[in-house]
Amino acid sequence: MDSYLIQMNGNSDVHVHRNGNSPSLGKVKGRKPRWAVRASEMSKKTFNPIRAIVDTMKVEPNPNKPMISLSLGDPTVFGNLPTDDEVTQAVKEALDSGNYNGYAPSVDAEDIPSETGKSGKTTVTPYSILLSQGYQSCRQVIAAYYSCPEAPLEAQDVILTSGCSQAIELALAVLANPGQNILVPRPGFSLYKTLALSMGIEVKFYNLLPEKSWEIDLKHLESLVNEKTACVIVNNPSNPCGSVFSKSHLQKVLAVASRQCVPILADEIYGDMVFAECKYEPIATLSTNVPILSCGGLAKRWLVPGWRMGWILVNDRRDIFGNEIRDGLVRLSQRILGPCTIVQGALEHIIHRTPPEFYHNTLSFLKSNADLCYAALSAISGLQPIRPSGAMYLMVGIEMEHFPKFENDVEFTEQLISEQSVFCLPASCFEYPSFFRVVLTVPEEMMVEACSRIQEFCERHYQGNEGAQDLECDK
Amino acid sequence: MDSYLIQMNGNSDVHVHRNGNSPSLGKVKGRKPRWAVRASEMSKKTFNPIRAIVDTMKVEPNPNKPMISLSLGDPTVFGNLPTDDEVTQAVKEALDSGNYNGYAPSVDAEDIPSETGKSGKTTVTPYSILLSQGYQSCRQVIAAYYSCPEAPLEAQDVILTSGCSQAIELALAVLANPGQNILVPRPGFSLYKTLALSMGIEVKFYNLLPEKSWEIDLKHLESLVNEKTACVIVNNPSNPCGSVFSKSHLQKVLAVASRQCVPILADEIYGDMVFAECKYEPIATLSTNVPILSCGGLAKRWLVPGWRMGWILVNDRRDIFGNEIRDGLVRLSQRILGPCTIVQGALEHIIHRTPPEFYHNTLSFLKSNADLCYAALSAISGLQPIRPSGAMYLMVGIEMEHFPKFENDVEFTEQLISEQSVFCLPASCFEYPSFFRVVLTVPEEMMVEACSRIQEFCERHYQGNEGAQDLECDK
Repeated sequence: MDSYLIQMNGNSDVHVHRNGNSPSLGKVKGRKPRWAVRASEMSKKTFNPIRAIVDTMKVEPNPNKPMISLSLGDPTVFGNLPTDDEVTQAVKEALDSGNYNGYAPSVDAEDIPSETGKSGKTTVTPYSILLSQGYQSCRQVIAAYYSCPEAPLEAQDVILTSGCSQAIELALAVLANPGQNILVPRPGFSLYKTLALSMGIEVKFYNLLPEKSWEIDLKHLESLVNEKTACVIVNNPSNPCGSVFSKSHLQKVLAVASRQCVPILADEIYGDMVFAECKYEPIATLSTNVPILSCGGLAKRWLVPGWRMGWILVNDRRDIFGNEIRDGLVRLSQRILGPCTIVQGALEHIIHRTPPEFYHNTLSFLKSNADLCYAALSAISGLQPIRPSGAMYLMVGIEMEHFPKFENDVEFTEQLISEQSVFCLPASCFEYPSFFRVVLTVPEEMMVEACSRIQEFCERHYQGNEGAQDLECDK
Repeated sequence: MDSYLIQMNGNSDVHVHRNGNSPSLGKVKGRKPRWAVRASEMSKKTFNPIRAIVDTMKVEPNPNKPMISLSLGDPTVFGNLPTDDEVTQAVKEALDSGNYNGYAPSVDAEDIPSETGKSGKTTVTPYSILLSQGYQSCRQVIAAYYSCPEAPLEAQDVILTSGCSQAIELALAVLANPGQNILVPRPGFSLYKTLALSMGIEVKFYNLLPEKSWEIDLKHLESLVNEKTACVIVNNPSNPCGSVFSKSHLQKVLAVASRQCVPILADEIYGDMVFAECKYEPIATLSTNVPILSCGGLAKRWLVPGWRMGWILVNDRRDIFGNEIRDGLVRLSQRILGPCTIVQGALEHIIHRTPPEFYHNTLSFLKSNADLCYAALSAISGLQPIRPSGAMYLMVGIEMEHFPKFENDVEFTEQLISEQSVFCLPASCFEYPSFFRVVLTVPEEMMVEACSRIQEFCERHYQGNEGAQDLECDK
């Protein structure tokens, strides 16, 4: 458990020299073995499953084919999906105002004792360096934007964080103690596991059902709950699935949480990123009693993941979280003092001035790439793409029995790189072997080219058999 | 230890309903008592000493005197210390480039497989979403800026973080396990204790000596080291003291660390912010063998604390940290994916284009405020200001025996608010009773007014006696 201590126990006298002289170089050499600095257990437990898998992929792309990477969940890498000018303009205005360079207070400027000394308690001033969940006015903007009659929000219900990753980290850190467990979707985003394990929290995976457009296996979910379950993570729309839950399905998920008295951590970073035919329902708007921490941010919908602007929305209509969880979140937010203030300062204009066409154009681009990719891959023997309804991903099942040459999804994607210079993440990265994930943000011509290369690859390695016939019929 | 579990143990069957129907409102009411969501122990242990003290100060300022707050360690609050135009211009250029909206990769763009597929391993691509210590090019800029022959730095030695607070958090998190201890200056910045306690790390305070311009009591420091000591935090220049250590003193500190084989966590966020008469020595430049994690950032010197741009410089000339600590830092940095990329993108121009006059003007302003404040408070019976040499603070000793009306520094500063509308943080916030801290970033006229009010306050409450005579002579 504590390698540093173990190291030291043998010769702890090393640490008892009180009157030694300051060391000459020679002495230092002699002492050097006594140094025993070890990385903490937490740093060792902070482990990224994707990296572990990718590290094993030691292949070179085909030098005769330009590399096409369908692996990055970052819509900005190809330059074809810039954010809106209003968004960058908003940041420039925040910069020019000069009002957003200081630490973000938790109260509005007008609440801070002014030169007239007449407004508010003096204690407000120190608060402003102590509470760090973001500018009150910016939190108000987010609250107003996401508030609705079924799930009303006020500024006090919003914590601004350094990206949605920190939102999830803070939400986990406030809800779970070491030794407890959390329920996480499989397939699912690897950060949940990375964060939980680093905190000594157990991860239990509940199944998503590809044949039901990745709906949650509710019986399986409920069967995993025990007295140590701290929360259920619900990711909708989903990375890596690109699935979007219906209102009725979300209500069933809430029913489980309600019966089992387990709060929900909703990862809704892809919120509102759904294709025309279906509707996005924030889970909190459907909850009558289950307390929910909803995590979101600017990253995906506004196409600026690097800006690290995220938030937690505290939905707690029955006061089950109460002040304890709110205060806990505020205390935890003091560790890093919130997200970059110039982006905070731009939030109001970003939210209010971004034209609807921007959102619409992004989604229709994703939708057309999704249709294109789904159609192309559906026609390939041995692949079973699952049609997405939102987000920016598409999952593809590999009928491994038709590709006997490959041990698993990792070998399949590895070989796809070396033969076709196409890189997709093997779904083992998402705890879901025999699938791979396609990112839909690449330019259309790249998507077309990638699909035809994948086809060429599969045709070369596919081996039909009886089982294949059946599986073909399944389509 | 785990209140949630304790709560549940009694009726864990609550969590075993498998076939319950989705609840009607009535049922939910009946079940409501079964909800028992508790904030985690960690969130409860994340505790800000300043807040705890300030919370107890329930006073109103004097309505007849405009409020003057000398409490905030934020140089931007009064608008008299704007950052340089080059700094904001640099961020605008990063915005306009459109190249800094995505996740920050750990490798240069040219290392990422290009359309020619000829450069680098494919595995570089996924790395770029996995390693999150910042853009390689930006890390190179910081490395080059702080590198020197005595402490050479390369990009790989730099981790970019969300402000210096996260730099300190990551440095602590990688060096210390729960149950170990760290040595922290007294008086000292409260964040060290806040972070350590939240991680289950014990804090041991070593004394700074006001009579020696806040030099470290080296014997006391060394006496605190034991086999569980994970690191010594050295804060230079100091918050709250405004002190700057000499080369020879830092060498003595290094000698202790070397003898005891304890690494150093250097909080150098006020690095280079020293007044003309003295010189700032980065401690790593004086170390021949002691491994050092130096934490810094843009916050103070460039006057943009809200931008949350910090860094860790890994100084490890004898390879004592080795890859283990570096890898640990990289793994930990994946939790939040680094600082805001538009600020990262601006780093090079910020570092290279900020004119020397900007730094000079900031320091001469602070120096003149320091002289003004020191002179004024030195003339006040019952106060013992300690002359600062850098940073932006000045500590003032209160001869409590001459102010018998007040129990301690908290009551003293409390009463100073209610009578004079002047707010200084009681040094109990820094584990150092009978002192208060003055922030030197306020406009000069405010500083003058504040000092005269403090004088009026002290003259009103001072009670002389024999002891007083002696103490007067001490000045």
